[in-house]
Amino acid sequence: MTAIDAVDTEHARTTVSFDRHPRAYRHWRLRVEEPIAWLELDVDPDGGLLPGYELKLNSYDIGVDIELYDATQRLRFEHPGVRAVVVTSAKDDVFCAGANIRMLAGSSHEWKVNFCKFTNETRNGMEDATEHSGQVYLAAVNGSCAGGGYELALACEHIVLIDDNSSTVALPEVPLLGVLPGTGGLTRMVDKRRVRKDRADVFATRSDGVKGKTAVEWRLVDELAPRREFAEVVAGRARELATRSRRPAGVEGIELTPLARTESADGLTYDHLTVHCDRTAGIVELTVRGPDTLTPSDVHAQGARFWLLAVTRELDDAILRLRTNEPELGTWVFRTVGDPAAVLAHERLVLANAAEDWLCNEIVHYYKRTLKRLDVTSRSLIALIEPGSCFAGLLLELALACDRQYILDGPPIDDEDSAERASITLSQANFGSFPMGNGLSRMDSRFYGDAGHVARLAGERDREISAAEAAELGLVTDAPDDIDWEDEIRLVIEGRRSLSPDALTGMEANHRFVGAETIETKIFGRLSAWQNWIFNRPNAAGQDGALRRYGTGRKPVYDRKRV
Amino acid sequence: MTAIDAVDTEHARTTVSFDRHPRAYRHWRLRVEEPIAWLELDVDPDGGLLPGYELKLNSYDIGVDIELYDATQRLRFEHPGVRAVVVTSAKDDVFCAGANIRMLAGSSHEWKVNFCKFTNETRNGMEDATEHSGQVYLAAVNGSCAGGGYELALACEHIVLIDDNSSTVALPEVPLLGVLPGTGGLTRMVDKRRVRKDRADVFATRSDGVKGKTAVEWRLVDELAPRREFAEVVAGRARELATRSRRPAGVEGIELTPLARTESADGLTYDHLTVHCDRTAGIVELTVRGPDTLTPSDVHAQGARFWLLAVTRELDDAILRLRTNEPELGTWVFRTVGDPAAVLAHERLVLANAAEDWLCNEIVHYYKRTLKRLDVTSRSLIALIEPGSCFAGLLLELALACDRQYILDGPPIDDEDSAERASITLSQANFGSFPMGNGLSRMDSRFYGDAGHVARLAGERDREISAAEAAELGLVTDAPDDIDWEDEIRLVIEGRRSLSPDALTGMEANHRFVGAETIETKIFGRLSAWQNWIFNRPNAAGQDGALRRYGTGRKPVYDRKRV
Repeated sequence: MTAIDAVDTEHARTTVSFDRHPRAYRHWRLRVEEPIAWLELDVDPDGGLLPGYELKLNSYDIGVDIELYDATQRLRFEHPGVRAVVVTSAKDDVFCAGANIRMLAGSSHEWKVNFCKFTNETRNGMEDATEHSGQVYLAAVNGSCAGGGYELALACEHIVLIDDNSSTVALPEVPLLGVLPGTGGLTRMVDKRRVRKDRADVFATRSDGVKGKTAVEWRLVDELAPRREFAEVVAGRARELATRSRRPAGVEGIELTPLARTESADGLTYDHLTVHCDRTAGIVELTVRGPDTLTPSDVHAQGARFWLLAVTRELDDAILRLRTNEPELGTWVFRTVGDPAAVLAHERLVLANAAEDWLCNEIVHYYKRTLKRLDVTSRSLIALIEPGSCFAGLLLELALACDRQYILDGPPIDDEDSAERASITLSQANFGSFPMGNGLSRMDSRFYGDAGHVARLAGERDREISAAEAAELGLVTDAPDDIDWEDEIRLVIEGRRSLSPDALTGMEANHRFVGAETIETKIFGRLSAWQNWIFNRPNAAGQDGALRRYGTGRKPVYDRKRV
Repeated sequence: MTAIDAVDTEHARTTVSFDRHPRAYRHWRLRVEEPIAWLELDVDPDGGLLPGYELKLNSYDIGVDIELYDATQRLRFEHPGVRAVVVTSAKDDVFCAGANIRMLAGSSHEWKVNFCKFTNETRNGMEDATEHSGQVYLAAVNGSCAGGGYELALACEHIVLIDDNSSTVALPEVPLLGVLPGTGGLTRMVDKRRVRKDRADVFATRSDGVKGKTAVEWRLVDELAPRREFAEVVAGRARELATRSRRPAGVEGIELTPLARTESADGLTYDHLTVHCDRTAGIVELTVRGPDTLTPSDVHAQGARFWLLAVTRELDDAILRLRTNEPELGTWVFRTVGDPAAVLAHERLVLANAAEDWLCNEIVHYYKRTLKRLDVTSRSLIALIEPGSCFAGLLLELALACDRQYILDGPPIDDEDSAERASITLSQANFGSFPMGNGLSRMDSRFYGDAGHVARLAGERDREISAAEAAELGLVTDAPDDIDWEDEIRLVIEGRRSLSPDALTGMEANHRFVGAETIETKIFGRLSAWQNWIFNRPNAAGQDGALRRYGTGRKPVYDRKRV
């Protein structure tokens, strides 16, 4: 067994956890000096999540990025006074060398793809914080900055590059590794920073990068600062960005307390979410519980215990763990249990105050980002709407994010004498509060181009919609009665399992995003699909491919056929 | 050697020609009864382009599609009186079964991808004729219609399905073959026909398809007609669509005469284009010659001899042949030779009359489509602008379509005493006459988000722009002088050859289309990239994969990991 194979085998064995805390970061230092926070990358070379590779030159694996994600979340919730976040390196001469090559070369295909998806989501989250939280990210590139390192900088609003005649920004993936920059670099260059196509071509095909005035002229960075003035320029720029922010001053954050989670061989149990892995059926059953109280109490006083924040954190954690640790369970089945009125009461409180209250605003955007994770999850998503469920308003978004929705038109399966019936409720939340990556609400996406029908649905808000009506209004895929329900759902789930997992991933990625594409959908649709393809090609991943041969001193051997 | 391997080997040996004529069609019947044309699919099962598969049930290979492309082109140029085109089948009970599975299963990866690209372009061309030529396509689905067969119907403006209790439309690729519908089916369902995401999911995961009222309700087809009324309903609808068209009546077409082309081992010579394959360098050199006369004579009288039409046909043919027959030549180098003033005179004539004159309109759109072929060609494209060249107006679009543009800032390399210098000229043609698939002009794409600069450039039209100015205005990548020229160009070309062909294809696909995506860019970016990935995965293409096992009676074996 080679060292590379060992990494791969280890992946299969390791359960990855996403629990982190700044006190125990191994690779980042978070320093808060309101209104500015400093996020310094200081990767411990021996701190790889798995054995088999050394994290030299501030290169990263998913473990480093999980800490970054934790930091970005804590900044938004625990440090509302922060208005600018400086991302920089604690090491001399190197900002970040990007994703670790030995880790990539030794990883299975699905590990690489999942790793790229998570890192992309974290970078999109930094842009989301810049746009929606008034926490503006600034990259202080104090040394060489390559590949994923430059892509990290690209996710920031402003890039300052040290002008020392040696530090460059670079995207050397194509020339050195025969793969694409996998964290949005190509897209952000041409679409966000508007680097000219031919310059992007030159830049992304040379391994040595670009520095100094050329980097500014090509719009690869925003400004230069010589070494002796670097700290001052960065601090000044951070202060300036902080003044632009509309974040409130003098407010107290809330603590993101550790998640209460019980793990077993077949699932996860959280306070408001249970996750059951049915390995025989190849599915995961996720059941979300609505709020316990009809009337929500003070959001700030409740903090991390506030139902919507708590359940969002649990969903976020479950999605990330399932994606990483359970790749063979290809269908996720969503249910809810609870009182629709309580869901709607909590929703109203949060949405009504989002414009004025920073915490409500954060909760809305966090739930939005968590729904977006579902939109890009490579699993078939099925919502089952049964009596006793609470698919109302923002929880109905969970169902709308799914590939299919089934509602039971009849009494509960285990209690045929019951008068209880399943229903759904539309609310404000379904008409723009939680846009998808394509910029459209899930309702506008579902009824793409049919504004008349969406307007009609807007008139049906805030009342229980029966199974038959839901079917009539196009809000569900089917509404089987209690006689057919179990058979139909079984056939749906078994049918899914009979299909090619790859074809499903491709099909779902094509169906989920209608309309114009955005940087986000391009990253997850266009860029990721090409990268996945390249990751599978012998020119990258074969024994003689560039990814495998990198660092060996031996040149890759290419099949010259252009495909 | 298995039969499947035999197909693959045969691909490598065969030079594919795109020359066709309705008199010699083997698979289609074209009948023109102005204002309606009938295109009847009647595939000869023994008429496969290569041995090793039988084209049963009106299934197709690239040979069938080359005839379709020829027909769509001839309809536009030779039959201007046609205002509606009915696509139907000459066989009872079957409309079209889609791409031939044995052909696909036996084809190399690059053959499959190139085949899909060409078929996609032809379907986009049918939509282009509907929108821009007033030749509206109508699908008369008179029997079962599956996979690529339904995708052919989706490219039509209107779909009539026979209502006979058995004929269905279906996209069975995911359930039967473990691949995606590769000709835009998923995209056109949700984006063009606005089929709801969950219905698209149900439809694309069942192999038996949908018929009758459900097909209409789900928006998969536009109307039904019982067998005894089918011909009448179709003819009536075709007449109705014909009335809507603004095509002129009583005009004469021009003949698309056979292309004069000399083939040699190292290239192709046309009247206005030479193509030289340098197999040592791994490049193709394409040199376009401008018009011979400064003053263009009557377009109609010249017909296929009119310079712009002639050179467009030559370029189109060369692009298609090189893509299919020369996959290992990964870089295409474009040059022009001629008088810029003559190019601009021809351009003015055509653009000035495009709104009124059907032939000028056709020429404009044909050149537009040919440039679009370049935009989606998986080759690195380099323009070399040298003294004696005529990169003016519409020929400058060729350079702008390239990944890089180099202009020589000095005398001709072989004549250092000459006073001749390279220049470029902007014209009306560069500011919207030839939009890319993303809906933007190449100028708007190049300077994406910088409307001010585009406006400035619009003020620089119709004059010679020197090498130094071109660099200053951002219209070229670099402007080396005569001392550096040869070395720099050599390094560019050698550098390209040292890179992974797959990574280049992915990178170029990400750089070339900025801004919002459209159905077209989704097809070539999102859909094709996912399909390419799936084509490479063992779940489809492996010995136990669905594509290989189809028809053997043995179920595919899937790796269940979701990626």
